Amino acid sequence: MAKEITPRSQDYSQWYNDLVIKAGLADYSAVRGCMVIKPYGYAIWENMQRALDQMFKDTGHSNAYFPLFIPKSFFNKEAAHVEGFAKECAVVTHYRLKNDGEGGIIVDPDAKLEEELIVRPTSETIIWNTYRDWIQSYRDLPLLINQWANVVRWEMRTRLFLRTTEFLWQEGHTAHATAEEAVEETRKMLEVYATFAEEWMGVPVIKGVKTANERFAGALDTYCIEALMQDGKALQAGTSHFLGQNFAKAFDVQFANAEGGRDYVWATSWGVSTRLMGALVMAHSDDDGLVLPPKLAPVQVVIVPIYKGDESVAALQAAGNKLKRELEAKGIRVKFDSDEKSRPGWKFAEHEMKGVPVRIAMGMRDLENGTVEVARRDTREKESLQNADLGDKMLHLLDQIQQNIYQKALDYRAAMTYTADNWDEFTDILDNKGGFVAAHWDGTPETETKIKEMTKATIRCIPLNNPEEAGSCILTGKPSVQRVLFAKAY
Amino acid sequence: MAKEITPRSQDYSQWYNDLVIKAGLADYSAVRGCMVIKPYGYAIWENMQRALDQMFKDTGHSNAYFPLFIPKSFFNKEAAHVEGFAKECAVVTHYRLKNDGEGGIIVDPDAKLEEELIVRPTSETIIWNTYRDWIQSYRDLPLLINQWANVVRWEMRTRLFLRTTEFLWQEGHTAHATAEEAVEETRKMLEVYATFAEEWMGVPVIKGVKTANERFAGALDTYCIEALMQDGKALQAGTSHFLGQNFAKAFDVQFANAEGGRDYVWATSWGVSTRLMGALVMAHSDDDGLVLPPKLAPVQVVIVPIYKGDESVAALQAAGNKLKRELEAKGIRVKFDSDEKSRPGWKFAEHEMKGVPVRIAMGMRDLENGTVEVARRDTREKESLQNADLGDKMLHLLDQIQQNIYQKALDYRAAMTYTADNWDEFTDILDNKGGFVAAHWDGTPETETKIKEMTKATIRCIPLNNPEEAGSCILTGKPSVQRVLFAKAY
Repeated sequence: MAKEITPRSQDYSQWYNDLVIKAGLADYSAVRGCMVIKPYGYAIWENMQRALDQMFKDTGHSNAYFPLFIPKSFFNKEAAHVEGFAKECAVVTHYRLKNDGEGGIIVDPDAKLEEELIVRPTSETIIWNTYRDWIQSYRDLPLLINQWANVVRWEMRTRLFLRTTEFLWQEGHTAHATAEEAVEETRKMLEVYATFAEEWMGVPVIKGVKTANERFAGALDTYCIEALMQDGKALQAGTSHFLGQNFAKAFDVQFANAEGGRDYVWATSWGVSTRLMGALVMAHSDDDGLVLPPKLAPVQVVIVPIYKGDESVAALQAAGNKLKRELEAKGIRVKFDSDEKSRPGWKFAEHEMKGVPVRIAMGMRDLENGTVEVARRDTREKESLQNADLGDKMLHLLDQIQQNIYQKALDYRAAMTYTADNWDEFTDILDNKGGFVAAHWDGTPETETKIKEMTKATIRCIPLNNPEEAGSCILTGKPSVQRVLFAKAY
Repeated sequence: MAKEITPRSQDYSQWYNDLVIKAGLADYSAVRGCMVIKPYGYAIWENMQRALDQMFKDTGHSNAYFPLFIPKSFFNKEAAHVEGFAKECAVVTHYRLKNDGEGGIIVDPDAKLEEELIVRPTSETIIWNTYRDWIQSYRDLPLLINQWANVVRWEMRTRLFLRTTEFLWQEGHTAHATAEEAVEETRKMLEVYATFAEEWMGVPVIKGVKTANERFAGALDTYCIEALMQDGKALQAGTSHFLGQNFAKAFDVQFANAEGGRDYVWATSWGVSTRLMGALVMAHSDDDGLVLPPKLAPVQVVIVPIYKGDESVAALQAAGNKLKRELEAKGIRVKFDSDEKSRPGWKFAEHEMKGVPVRIAMGMRDLENGTVEVARRDTREKESLQNADLGDKMLHLLDQIQQNIYQKALDYRAAMTYTADNWDEFTDILDNKGGFVAAHWDGTPETETKIKEMTKATIRCIPLNNPEEAGSCILTGKPSVQRVLFAKAY
């Protein structure tokens, strides 16, 4: 039985949920707002991690690990930070359970913590408290550290991968001797994220800067990459923050500079999370299931034998195993789905649901002819290929698919990026088309907030290298020097 | 300035702490009982993870991720399990902070959870609650899943890596159709752990079964690997549990078996943690610092140029970079420590502290002679080698070092494994020699507890394939059929 998912056109949100669950990526858990990442979903996340981790190391970063718990008092040291996170913190107040004497267990009132511990929503505070001991002189800088970890932000309305109370992420935390270096690092990591999104996930992104309203709590500047999903909504896929000296001042992290004076350290932080899984699903998939970019697909090529009678089984299994070894020798991740009990049609549907980029089917006639039938998941095209050099042909095909998926998303975004020069145009696009809207804004947080209240659209970013252009704000008519990018967003 | 550590002979415990901190492996944090794993320590842990993860995948396991939080009521479902963990649980009771109106923040009393959440000390309960939805029929079995995660067990007396409130680990949780299969899995993973300890960490281990007293809370049998540290104390380095149907019954996980009936699922769980880092340090290191097995060393070979005058710098840097590339081409992890400001002696001490297995020094005379000076960290031997085929020579040397480290630990353990046939012998060994003591025991938990109270020694395990041998219990004189392995332990 093929699993059925709600069509996108009928209910996009339900389509997404069905897909995440039926493709075996994740599931709801017994704990409100927390998800279980299932093996297939986790395998994709592992591929993401491996690629990102290598990019972090190639840019000079090392991994480390800091405590899950943060003393409550640490939060209060950076005013904007506590304001941003206080309302969504899971708080540990006790460290022991005990029997209630009636067969149940209760929290032991005698085991109350003197100071409550916060389950980290992000680690700036505990990390900068640690950096105070690690940084004495300019020779200790830059300090380039990343952490892979789980974090908790209490959410009332959750969606698998996109917004969950617990999620997995990486958070880079770097320390620098000058503001310039820190800004350079912030932008460098934004580039790393953009490269990863585009070259690995096949998701084109707009690089930009957030407005003050949308800035990270405690940052001077928040850079972001913004992607467009197939329903015309934007999704923030990664952020990189220039923190100035805010955390260094809050935690008194000073260093002896090269000139013999003392100065506060300059900071950045940057992160991407399992939210990227949601972006990956929503950017490419269709009504038959996932469409995965080959670079991140746990299985890149699946081989399905078309058995016909008992005598075909041994021949096709030998051929399938041989082909599997041949492709693996080229570094391709291959599954030979040799199961005799399931029908080919069921297998086809299953592998389509899971977004396997290439399916190779082979029957007895193929064996006689020295051919295989190759089907692409992205375009659904099929062709019969000669067996010779199939490894190289598959490498080439996987590369084509990776590019095609990206190009398709790029074309979609181009078609879904509009300009609006007045309020009617602006709301018409948001209501009837979706997508990104480039429009003039008077630069005030008040206007931004009003626009959000009236349309649910937010300023996703001010794109990097944004051209200057005189205009007037779509809401207030006040003068503006550039267009900014609006969209409804996840 | 070379960092100094307390000699082992003077204070073993302080030696360990000094080493962990000064080699840059880990540090205490501002959160009681929680550690910070520093970049160098984390790099070793990453190498451990990579090797173990591959071994898990090679034995058919997939990774997944389950929630950090466990509803309190889940714990109560398996009686022995709650008994074992209730006293060391961090409990989340609230999900929000708020301003106290005086510039501070407090836990918001209006944001109290209806049911408290436990920060996972281990995940059997949440996972078996999930497996109920994943397992319907024998076709869904075996389910072979592993999780890399952080866990929290509240500890009053902590030691870096060995016993911390939060630690990192992996926990395998598998589900099987029969008891035999589950026992086979339990033993298979014990073998994986033993292979990893011996072949990667260079730490010989005894494989065995725990007595009832030392069993995992909720298990029918706990298998373990036990290693001997250089102070003669044992350290449990990994455990693999046969859980029977305890968790399947507690969480009502039944399946339709092949015969058309219904049965409860059989379970295993198995784990190793960052405690292995402590074992690695204590098994091999000396008063000058770490001694790392090459397979896990973040840097396997360090090249140190011996500059003599300004004109030597360019020549030695060219030669050093060339050699680095040559060794890297062989897959060796190399650092070229080309810094001109630090003296060679300081560098030597630093790399010895960090346990880099091989140091290659090169001066101008070496360049003229086509030689380098090669020093081993494990034996401290030095020799002058011709440049030809240095890559292959280093591969061979690293292999020798890996074997030598293991052999040395094995010889030490052999010398430190005693038999005792009566109480006086037993206590004499424990008091004056340390190490493992093979002795007869009457098989009762009461006697085991008494021996522990009197000597602090515990039964580390009943070794697998233990020879039968008639004897009498060293404490009670009652008859016994086999010797068991006692030791004082971490």
